[in-house]
Formats: sequence, C-alpha cells, structure tokens
Amino acid sequence: MVVPLHSGLLTVSDYEKTATSLLPVHPRDYYNGGAEDEVTLRENKRAFQDYTIRPFCLRDASSCSLSTSFLSLPVSHPIGIAPTAFHRMAHPEGELATVRGAKASSALMIASSWSTTPLEEMKKEAGGHPMWFQLYVYKDRDLTRSIVRRAEAAGYFAIVLTVDTPLLGRRLADTRNRFQLPSHLKFANFASVAQEKMPSASNESSAFMNYVSGQIDPSLTWKDVRELAKSTRLPVIVKGVMRGEDAVEAINNGVKGIIVSNHGGRQIDSGPATIHILREIVDAVQGRVPVWMDGGVRNGRDIFKALALGATGVFVGRPILWGLTVAGENGVAHVLEILSKELEYTMRLAGCPTIESIREAKDIVVHKSFFARL
Amino acid sequence: MVVPLHSGLLTVSDYEKTATSLLPVHPRDYYNGGAEDEVTLRENKRAFQDYTIRPFCLRDASSCSLSTSFLSLPVSHPIGIAPTAFHRMAHPEGELATVRGAKASSALMIASSWSTTPLEEMKKEAGGHPMWFQLYVYKDRDLTRSIVRRAEAAGYFAIVLTVDTPLLGRRLADTRNRFQLPSHLKFANFASVAQEKMPSASNESSAFMNYVSGQIDPSLTWKDVRELAKSTRLPVIVKGVMRGEDAVEAINNGVKGIIVSNHGGRQIDSGPATIHILREIVDAVQGRVPVWMDGGVRNGRDIFKALALGATGVFVGRPILWGLTVAGENGVAHVLEILSKELEYTMRLAGCPTIESIREAKDIVVHKSFFARL
Amino acid sequence: MVVPLHSGLLTVSDYEKTATSLLPVHPRDYYNGGAEDEVTLRENKRAFQDYTIRPFCLRDASSCSLSTSFLSLPVSHPIGIAPTAFHRMAHPEGELATVRGAKASSALMIASSWSTTPLEEMKKEAGGHPMWFQLYVYKDRDLTRSIVRRAEAAGYFAIVLTVDTPLLGRRLADTRNRFQLPSHLKFANFASVAQEKMPSASNESSAFMNYVSGQIDPSLTWKDVRELAKSTRLPVIVKGVMRGEDAVEAINNGVKGIIVSNHGGRQIDSGPATIHILREIVDAVQGRVPVWMDGGVRNGRDIFKALALGATGVFVGRPILWGLTVAGENGVAHVLEILSKELEYTMRLAGCPTIESIREAKDIVVHKSFFARL
Amino acid sequence: MVVPLHSGLLTVSDYEKTATSLLPVHPRDYYNGGAEDEVTLRENKRAFQDYTIRPFCLRDASSCSLSTSFLSLPVSHPIGIAPTAFHRMAHPEGELATVRGAKASSALMIASSWSTTPLEEMKKEAGGHPMWFQLYVYKDRDLTRSIVRRAEAAGYFAIVLTVDTPLLGRRLADTRNRFQLPSHLKFANFASVAQEKMPSASNESSAFMNYVSGQIDPSLTWKDVRELAKSTRLPVIVKGVMRGEDAVEAINNGVKGIIVSNHGGRQIDSGPATIHILREIVDAVQGRVPVWMDGGVRNGRDIFKALALGATGVFVGRPILWGLTVAGENGVAHVLEILSKELEYTMRLAGCPTIESIREAKDIVVHKSFFARL
Repeated sequence: MVVPLHSGLLTVSDYEKTATSLLPVHPRDYYNGGAEDEVTLRENKRAFQDYTIRPFCLRDASSCSLSTSFLSLPVSHPIGIAPTAFHRMAHPEGELATVRGAKASSALMIASSWSTTPLEEMKKEAGGHPMWFQLYVYKDRDLTRSIVRRAEAAGYFAIVLTVDTPLLGRRLADTRNRFQLPSHLKFANFASVAQEKMPSASNESSAFMNYVSGQIDPSLTWKDVRELAKSTRLPVIVKGVMRGEDAVEAINNGVKGIIVSNHGGRQIDSGPATIHILREIVDAVQGRVPVWMDGGVRNGRDIFKALALGATGVFVGRPILWGLTVAGENGVAHVLEILSKELEYTMRLAGCPTIESIREAKDIVVHKSFFARL
Repeated sequence: MVVPLHSGLLTVSDYEKTATSLLPVHPRDYYNGGAEDEVTLRENKRAFQDYTIRPFCLRDASSCSLSTSFLSLPVSHPIGIAPTAFHRMAHPEGELATVRGAKASSALMIASSWSTTPLEEMKKEAGGHPMWFQLYVYKDRDLTRSIVRRAEAAGYFAIVLTVDTPLLGRRLADTRNRFQLPSHLKFANFASVAQEKMPSASNESSAFMNYVSGQIDPSLTWKDVRELAKSTRLPVIVKGVMRGEDAVEAINNGVKGIIVSNHGGRQIDSGPATIHILREIVDAVQGRVPVWMDGGVRNGRDIFKALALGATGVFVGRPILWGLTVAGENGVAHVLEILSKELEYTMRLAGCPTIESIREAKDIVVHKSFFARL
Repeated sequence: MVVPLHSGLLTVSDYEKTATSLLPVHPRDYYNGGAEDEVTLRENKRAFQDYTIRPFCLRDASSCSLSTSFLSLPVSHPIGIAPTAFHRMAHPEGELATVRGAKASSALMIASSWSTTPLEEMKKEAGGHPMWFQLYVYKDRDLTRSIVRRAEAAGYFAIVLTVDTPLLGRRLADTRNRFQLPSHLKFANFASVAQEKMPSASNESSAFMNYVSGQIDPSLTWKDVRELAKSTRLPVIVKGVMRGEDAVEAINNGVKGIIVSNHGGRQIDSGPATIHILREIVDAVQGRVPVWMDGGVRNGRDIFKALALGATGVFVGRPILWGLTVAGENGVAHVLEILSKELEYTMRLAGCPTIESIREAKDIVVHKSFFARL
Repeated sequence: MVVPLHSGLLTVSDYEKTATSLLPVHPRDYYNGGAEDEVTLRENKRAFQDYTIRPFCLRDASSCSLSTSFLSLPVSHPIGIAPTAFHRMAHPEGELATVRGAKASSALMIASSWSTTPLEEMKKEAGGHPMWFQLYVYKDRDLTRSIVRRAEAAGYFAIVLTVDTPLLGRRLADTRNRFQLPSHLKFANFASVAQEKMPSASNESSAFMNYVSGQIDPSLTWKDVRELAKSTRLPVIVKGVMRGEDAVEAINNGVKGIIVSNHGGRQIDSGPATIHILREIVDAVQGRVPVWMDGGVRNGRDIFKALALGATGVFVGRPILWGLTVAGENGVAHVLEILSKELEYTMRLAGCPTIESIREAKDIVVHKSFFARL
C-alpha cells in the first residue's frame, strides 16, 4: 500500500470525480470523452452490469493469490496499464510519474507512442520493471522501423500494435474545443520528425485528428502485421480486435497475444462493449494465445468478470489518468491498489482464491439472461 | 464540402436543436411531430440503439467509396432526401434551396407532391441532377394522371407512390395548433384545382387532415398500383411498406423498388420502427428489387446499420428540413455532408470500405440479443 | 359525435388530467388508485407498449366498420363500459348521466352493483339500449337472489359475476384517507338491507374494505357459478379470470362469456397486465365463448391490440369516470367517441377495415420480442 | 394485532422511511447499507419485480392458513427474523425488545452472534418461544465451541452457520463513517474475550472490518461444517448458499436446512438477487432439506413469490430493525403483522389459501419472460 492520499478516495469513482473537477476543460474532455455520441463509451462501463457473479461458499479464503503470467512474464496481479497519450497534461511529471506508480504496484505498463516523455526515459525510469511499447504504423515506414528498433534497444518486452485506428475517431468535444497539444508539450518520441508537421485544428476536426490522418498509415492489413512480427525479436500483441475472425487472423499472422479493445469508446461509435465480445474472442482463440481486454473497467468486480469470461488480464486507462491527475505517482499506485484489493475481496468472497480457479469455475459469471431461463 | 456554416454545427442533432429554436411553433410542430402519442416517432430513432456494429480491423481503410446505385442510377452515396411537404415554411426559397443543396451534395431527392414550388420548377433547378417524384393518388383520377404526365414531362426519373396514407395520421399538435398552410403559400402542384377546396381546421382535425380526407383516395389497392405501373414509362417505387407480404405484393404488381417507411411516425402510431422491420422485408424481397428505408436516421452509424441489414440506401426527411431552416441550400448540403462523412468514418473504422462490403460482412451489425446468446 | 366539449380534450389522457384536477382528493384517489404498491395498476397500462402493430398497406380503407356482436347482441363498436362504483361522487347525476352517455354513443354498459342509483332507474333511463348487470355474491344468498331477480325484471341482458373479490384489495390511499361513501350517497341497490350495516373506517382498512369483508361471500367456488347459471334465464359472464385453466372451468360451469380482468389493478397486486394474459385465455377458450378484457385501455391502439390478440371487445372504467367528472353525459359520450374514432383510425391505417379482419390478420400485433428474432 | 402504533404506518416502506429519518447517521448507514456499489443490495429488492403472480379465482378464500413448519417446528406463518447485529443501536432495549416482538407475533427469530445482549438473556426472554442461534466460526476454535455449548444450554433449537463471511464485505459508508460500535455497547456474547481485541477504524476499513479479519476464520470449508454438525445435537443450517452445487455439498455434510442469502447485499457485490437464485437451489436440493431465503423481502407479495418458487419460508432483517427503531417491540410485532397480513391477502386473492397450495400451484409465479413466449 502506497499511501491513503486523500481520506475519502476509496474507489476509482472517487478518483474520477476528483480528477474531473481538477482538470482544465481541454485535457479533461480529451481524457474522458469518446467518439461521436459516446454510445460505446457508456456501454463499455454499463455492460458489466449485465453480468452477475455467482459465488461459491466455504472454499478456504485464508489465502488468495492474484499472481498470474502475461506471456511468460510472471505478474503479481492481472491489472495492467493501458497505453494513453500525453500524461504531462495530467501532471507535470507525466509518464515518469506513471512509470513510478506502475513500478510501486508491480503493474505491467504499456507505454504509449504518443507519450510526452521519450520511450527511452520511461524505460530507464522503470529499471528492471517490465514494460510493453504501444506502436502505431506511420506512413513513413522508416520512422516506424526506427521506433521499433528504439523500443527493442530500450528494453521493452513486447510491441503492442494498435489495429483500430486507421483514422482517428471523431471526438466531438475535442473538435469543439479545437483541441491541440499544449504548446509546451510535444510528441516526445517523434521530436525531430513529426513536430514540424503538426497541423492546426479546423472547424470540423481537431489538430490531433489532422495529425493522424496526415501521419498514420490507414492501409494497414494483416500482411503488415506478419512483416512486423518477423522484423522484431519482440513478441507482437495486437490491441483493438473485436471479432473472433480477426483474432484467428492475428494468430495466423504471428501475433502472440490479443487485447480486446474498442479504444475506450474513442474510435468507432455504436460498437459493442468489450466485455460483451470477450467470450466470442476467447472461444475463437482456443487458448493458443492470451487474450486481455480493456474498456470500462472501474472496479474489482469488473476485473473478476473479465477473468471469468476468459481474459488473461485487463488493462485500465482512464483510472490511471485520474490517479495521475489527483496525486501523481502515488495516485497511480493507489488506483492500482484499489483495483487489486477489490479483485482480491471479490475472489475471496466468490470462493475463487486464485486466478486459475476463476477461469475453471463453471458459470461463476453469467449473463443476466441466465435467470430468465431458471 | 460546402461550408462550415456555423461553428458548432457538427451533427444532425446540432441542426435539430438550432432549427427547433428558430422555427415558429406551427411549422416546428408540423415538421417535428408525429401521430397520436408519438410512440412510433420516438421508436424509429431509439430502435437504432438496439443494433450494434461489430467492426473488423486491418482491412485497408486507405480508400473508401460510398458510391452505389439506386435502380440503375449511379449515386455517389446512399443517402437520399425523403419527400417532405411545404419547404417554404422553413425557408423563403423553399424547395428550390433544397434542390440546390441536394445537387451540391449529389443526393438523390424525392420531390413531394405537396411542395410549395411547382414540380417543373424544382426539376428545372436540378438540371441534369436526378430526382424522383412522390405521388398521392387523388380521388380525382384525371388530376392524378395529369400529375404523373407532368412528372414524366419534367424529367423525373421515377414515381414514388406513398401507400401508407389512405387518411392522414392524427398529429395532435397540429390539431391543437389548428395548423393550416400559411396564407401566402400554396399546394403549388395543384394551384388551379385543389386550392379552392382547401378546408379550414376544426376542433378535432387540422385543415390538412380535412384536405386529405377530402382529396386523397382511401380505396387504393394493389390493383391501382398495377395500373399505375402500366400507365407510365417511369419505374414505380412504393413508400410505406412495413410487412414482407406487402413487399411481395408490390413486386407482383410491377413495382421496381420499395421504401420501408412509417411516414416518419406520422401515420399509424404504435407501429414498429423501420429499422426493426427492414430485415423482414429484405428477406421477403430476396433481391428482386432494391429496398430503401427512412425513419429515425440521424447519423452515419444509423445508415451503416440500415445498409448492413440489407437496405440499398436510406432517405432522410427532418434532417433536411432542419438544414434548410438553419441555412437554406448550404444547410441542406451540410447536413448531407455530415451524414456521408459519418458514414465514411464508420465504414473505414468498421473495415468495410465499400457499400458492397457492408452487405457481405456476416453479422457486421447485430441485434443486442446477440450478446445474450454468447 | 356529441360535442367537442372543451377545446383541447382530444384524448383520454386529456380527460384524465382534467378530471384528476377537478375531483376532490377522496373520490380522486378512490377512482384512480390501485392495490398496495400499484404495480399491477401501472403495468396494465404500460404493457400495451410491449405490443406493436404491423400494418398492411393498400387494403382499401374507404369504408371501415367497427360493428361486431357481444354474445348475440349486435354492437356498433367493441368498446363497452366496465362496471365502476359510486358515479354520484363524480357528477351529481351519477349513473343516469353515464347511461345517457352510453346510449348516445351506442356503448354497452355494465351497471355496477355498487351504484349510487338503483338498477331499475338505470335500466329505465337506458330504455331499449342494452345493459348488463354486474353482480357480487353476498353472504346473504336471499339478498343475492333478489338482486338477480331485480336485474332480470328490469330488463338487463346478462349477469356479469365478479370473481376476483373474495375480499377487497388493500388500496392504501383509501385507507390513509379513511375513505367512505359521502353521507349523502348510498349503495342504492341495497337501501333497505346493507345501509344500516355500513361499518366505519379503521386505522388499517377503509370503511369500504370492512363493508366487503362483512357482506361479500369469500367462499365462492365454481359450484356457486354453476348454480347461479342455472338459476337465471340470463347468460352469466365472469369478470376477473386471469388464467387459462379458470377460463375452462368457467365454460364447464355454464358461463357464456369471460372478461379478462384484474379489477383495474385494485385487487391482487403484482399480478400480470391483462393484455399479457389475454392470448393465454383466448387459446384456452378455443372460441367456445367470447373473451373480453379490461385494464389499462386508454386509446384506440390499445383496443386494436386487444382485438388482435383475440378479444371480442374491451371494457373501459376510469376513462368513463373521467368523462363523467369533466362533463357528465357529454363527457362519457365524448370519451367513447374518442376511443372509437381512434380505433377506426388505427384499423384503416393498419389495413384492417373490419373487426373480423383484425382477428384474421396474422401477426398484425406482435410482442416486442418478435424483433429480437428477426 | 399488537397496536396500530402510528397512524400512517401501513407498510414496511412506511417503517423504512420513518426509521431512516429517526436513526443517527452511523447506525442508519450500518443497517441500510450494502457492500461496494450496492448493486446486489438494490437488485435483491428490484428482482422481485421480475416475477408476477398469476392468480386463480373462485377457490374458496373464506379461510386461509399461513401455518407451516420449519424443520419439525410448527410455525404460524413462514416469516422469520433474520440475524442482524447490534440491536441496541436501534433501541435502548435492543434484542430483548426484538425477542418480545417476535414472540408477540409468533415469528421464529434467529439470534445474531453479534448481539448487544447475551444469548442466554435473549433465550430467557423468549421463554418457550423457539429461537435459532446464528454462528460465526472464530479462529479461536475453543471460543467457537463454547458459543455452541452455550447456545445448546440456553435452549436454542438450531445453529445457523453463516457461510458467506470469510471476511467482511467492504461497506463504503461504514468506512467513510469510520464506523465502530458505540462505546456503551459491546459484543455481548464475547464480553471477556473479544472486547479487548476490538481494533479501531483505519482510513480504508471500519473497525468492524478489522475485527472480522482479526477474529473470524477465513479458512472454513465443508469439512468444518461436517465437524460442527457432528459436534452438536442441534440441527445445523447454513446461511449464505447461492449455488446449487453448494446446496448439495451442504446436505452431504450433514446440514439440515439451507438459507439462500447474500447477506442482504453486504458481502460480495454484483452477485445475483436471492429470489433469482432460489429456484436453482430448490431444484438441486430436491426436497431433502428445507430451503429458506432472505434478501429484499419487503411485502407479502415478495413472500408469496418466494414460497411459490420453492422456499419453506423467508427471513427479514432490515424491516425488523426499522420496526425496532420506530417503536421497539411493538414496532417489531407490527412489521411482522403487516407482512403476514399482506401474505394472507395475497394468498386469498391468488386462490391459494394454504402454504402447501402455493407450492403445488403450477406457474402461480412466473418470470416476466413468460409473457414474451405467449
């Protein structure tokens, strides 16, 4: 336990409320918002309520272990940090504070390509603590390759390729705000290259949308994934898979892990909640590679449900940003501790004292339609 | 792109709010209202939320084409303008502004019989741009035939026969408003004939309801459709079909296309949303003629869903009137651009870069009950 | 059409609002309230929204007939007046005004045993217009028999036996109001007998609840129904059947018609809406006797749905009381006219211009789960 | 009937409102609150609305008996008092008032281990009136055994072992309140032993949570249950079973009765409502032992539904505490009378005048999905 920073910060929801009141409007909307009508944003969170935990009793809850492994990496709990951009908008120490929080709570962190701190500095701060690196494929393939090389050199353990962003989802609040990265911050991994090309906002799209359509390669296919997988000694994980067929494609093209994600409701709107689609993907994958999920995870019951539906672990994005906003590295660590404690409570009260036992327990988590059948 | 008219007008919903605040009460209620308790009006829009888009990833979103064909007519996007009455209540230039907006955004427009501009003037304004003509069958069959002849002569490409209006749905706001066409406007296609017969409002029905019950033939059957189809060289499309059996009847009587419609919730109340009934009709038709739909379409995701469920395209009514109200022809064009842009975003993010690919993608759009089965 | 009494009274809902604001608290709560938590009261009305009308088009709506028959009695529309007590609380002319309104709009009326006007006077006011008489079986069987004899002598066409009231449902508002019949009114059919036995209210039950538990026979079974049926030349109809088995019992015991009813949500709470249970009963009865329903009917779409699900007709209670409150006999007639007009609109717009055609149209009305299957 | 204490207290909901306004914040939150987001707390109550009572008519409601038996003990109604802690926070006479209220209304009471009155005094107050004793298994097994011996000696009829509390559910309001037992009160059954070990509250857990984690044995398994069952001449009942498999385990390990419970939504959150899970457990048990339930029971319809779904009876917790708060023993008795009267009303109106007849009536209570199938 790091520190009970603020009396009263007991849940991620407490952090959300506090961070939302502390942040200036532009970063707040950038972090909290979703695409278009935000149907998927809301649904990611709401859909967890469609699932119910059916607890066992009297299964010796004296010990409880959250440890598991992500690929071959042992982790002390199954809660990772999803890649999110621009941490220096939340806190002056930015990604370095996040890395320290991750380290303090032994959480695997996925560094974002669009960090406001260079990837090398992040990994250096992490020391021996494992990190993965999230990648976008730029139209400029030399640039892309150099990023992969740098991630390898810096000691990242895996490449997490985002596959749901051929163009940036239309986040209306950002457009209305004419959102752009504050002038004192920069895309730290692309300092020499991309900065000069940073476009400004228009009436109909934020600076950031214009940046993505100018820089990111929308023509990506599984063939590119196969080439990426061959070109690096690091395992390649894809983030943004939402259909069983695509999960199979991923495996067939050399991918070593899948993150079920809809980009936190920030890309296509009116798509399914990730928790709704998780089982389909787990069934398609048939255990050949691990499957994680992100999207709407706000407490330990949510995590338990994801594990029961077949996830190897979950990643959280906004909760980390809220922790970072409220109290820097301690906030990050505290949010992770809240989640792992809540997961532990749930496991012990559900009679599943290990991660493995959650997965093996039949119907431990059911869709609400289960009760209509009784 | 025509013009970013007003900063902040990013969605059809923005246009709705602005137009609703600008319009006087009587036209506002006439445009926005539905029949009786407005159950169907609300359901048309809400029901789209019952469907979810399951996106593919990594399918090369570098190019995206919205082009398709309506009958044998190539169209650059599948979004047409539904016939709506009395455009001069929304804007002094009325239907002529709408035609120019349609032309600017390459949208097929269905001219209403109850326009406040003669059909010949509308088509003349359109020039080579294709238009269809919406028809009511009057008790006076000579009048009806003359209208068809005029539509043919003016160069319309098809006759769209409305089949859901043997009498006018009871729109309570219009009755309470004692709604009638403002005195400076007229049923421009019936100037010499119908104007003198225009009844006034009563306590229990608007002037317009009385007009319809006096003029429109309620005894119409499929036999009349067959005769109409034989009597004109233009293809006949029926608008207002809500059952599979009726779609089959239509085809058997020479109809060349079907528009699934409940008249924007303005005729029978407590009927189904059009998006709910679309698949039934597509299944009944088995590809023999194209099927379009209207009703509740407010954004690009709605359109994507309709296409995935088998529609050849959609028609929008109120959004056009809102655009017309706010900014005349530019508003019409901007609304259509918003919708086509949103559709394009959705297609690219869903991995379906052509209209054909949407239709072919299995379970790309599913009813929410899909997730209860997983 | 009787009279457009008040401009603005277009729907039953308009009458409800007006009457509710006009009535003193005690009668208002007595009329509008239901038992216990009023779950069934609300559900009766809400459940109609679970059903959707799937209209046919182009079926010649030039003529439309609402006429049908109730037992062998031809009626010009299928909307009857349900028995409700104490009309003189709503209007000084009480049941006599209701009878005149029923007559003016050709609606079959069921007179309540608990009228504030003697049954003979009601029938006399009706003249040749048909009426049925609603019966409770009193512990005092001589009294009961005398009531039946009087109904026969007065010229009622049928006996409607209420079978859901072995004791009075606990209507909490009445208990809190210590509701009792105003002192200037009386149970007019029991003037000599029951009046002197009228108990007062207690903390836990209204005077009326105490009256019922003192007077009405709770031991009633189907055997009593059989005896009643044998003892009178009038057809016996039972009101309050909510299960298929009971409908079969009724027929086996000489009953000639069934009214599906939960007493307007005033007896058992947390029971099903009548519209939900209608099909079960129609299926059980297999056409051997007619089946009517009451409960929650507020507009023509509701009536259309009931007919489509197999009802021979519907009865309305509170809407009549609201009409009576607002404008006496004209209000009663206007409410009935509103409902029959709305039914006619719905029939014409749904392509079912006769009552028979509604019943024969396959899937003309479906439960909302229908669309989950498409 | 004991006493109509306050005019206007007609329902448990009336008692809830009154007690909630009378109680100081800390006891109020302790009594009324649930774990975490209180999803299960709310769902326990809401889920009853998913079930509907399908009444029979004309089944002779002149007599009605609520009597049944709990194990071999005849009870005059199937409504027992669930074990709840610390009654002296609600009323100065605490558990002794509750016992008197239970006795006055012939309700079987389960005494809580965590009473503020010694178990011997409670049983003495009860005299010949039967009581059961609720047990937690302490890490200190000698202490546990001594409690069982004392319960036997005092004349309790059964041991009710709580099986859902290896650790205390995280009730956020208590944590925020830094809830602890008021200093003038004590764990009366553990006066010499546990009091000195009472921890204080921390930022993240209430004193009570810390007490439980210090004292209660989290390692409990079915083996301990088997040993307990062998070690006492009293029948052992388990409370907190939420799965069919666990019910079978219980029986296999010598348990004589099962209480389906989620601890009033105070242990695991996001678990199912007890009424949803009842049928599964009844089916698994196949009549070998009785099955009771608690959780969300607030009126007689709820109880009727539980009995129809197979429960031998129900237990109520918070309603008793509300009655105790408002009016001491009379309040307890009045709450029980309200519930039994409401149950009786429901039974008579549903045509099931005995407890046995409820269980035997086919589909007397159905899930709402029943109507989608009609």
